[in-house]
Amino acid sequence: MTIDDVRYDDRGLIPAVVQQWDTGEVLMVAWMNAESLRLTLETGTTWFWSRSRKELWNKGATSGNMQQVKAVYADCDTDTLLVKVDSPGPACHTGNRSCFFNALA
Amino acid sequence: MTIDDVRYDDRGLIPAVVQQWDTGEVLMVAWMNAESLRLTLETGTTWFWSRSRKELWNKGATSGNMQQVKAVYADCDTDTLLVKVDSPGPACHTGNRSCFFNALA
Repeated sequence: MTIDDVRYDDRGLIPAVVQQWDTGEVLMVAWMNAESLRLTLETGTTWFWSRSRKELWNKGATSGNMQQVKAVYADCDTDTLLVKVDSPGPACHTGNRSCFFNALA
Repeated sequence: MTIDDVRYDDRGLIPAVVQQWDTGEVLMVAWMNAESLRLTLETGTTWFWSRSRKELWNKGATSGNMQQVKAVYADCDTDTLLVKVDSPGPACHTGNRSCFFNALA
């Protein structure tokens, strides 16, 4: 499967689940557009589309906690991505390792 | 955090990442609305909203591959869910264990 097989929603976006490749931790979910997916594959670091700031962002470029891409998978419907990374530092802007630190009661 | 803290998009939906609780496998990503999240927590099995069929579905109710819910997390923005489950069977309608079996070249 190639980058051209990926399907985007009506905003031109696809959700990307970011997982630590060796431990299996789900670190975060963010959105990619075609340009950020291209940059992710080209640079080997994760790029996303910020829906609030309406700009591309290279995850960790400011904090230093860059994510090194190990592999990218599309799901059976080609409308969701799974990005396996090595993320040495926290993935969440709160400083938590993962964005999923709040259990629903 | 409770079910009332969860935020839905303008379609009333929230993406849910489904992960095998012990191995860490990311099995699938599907969408929930408020009703499917309520049913998921109430029944201990996963319920989603089908965007194509426009109906609730109880994952595995037909195939027998029900997912037993271990925990549900919201992310830091409360706009994505992580559902940790025990999924004894395949999670993908193709028969694959996970929907993410296609690596991008």
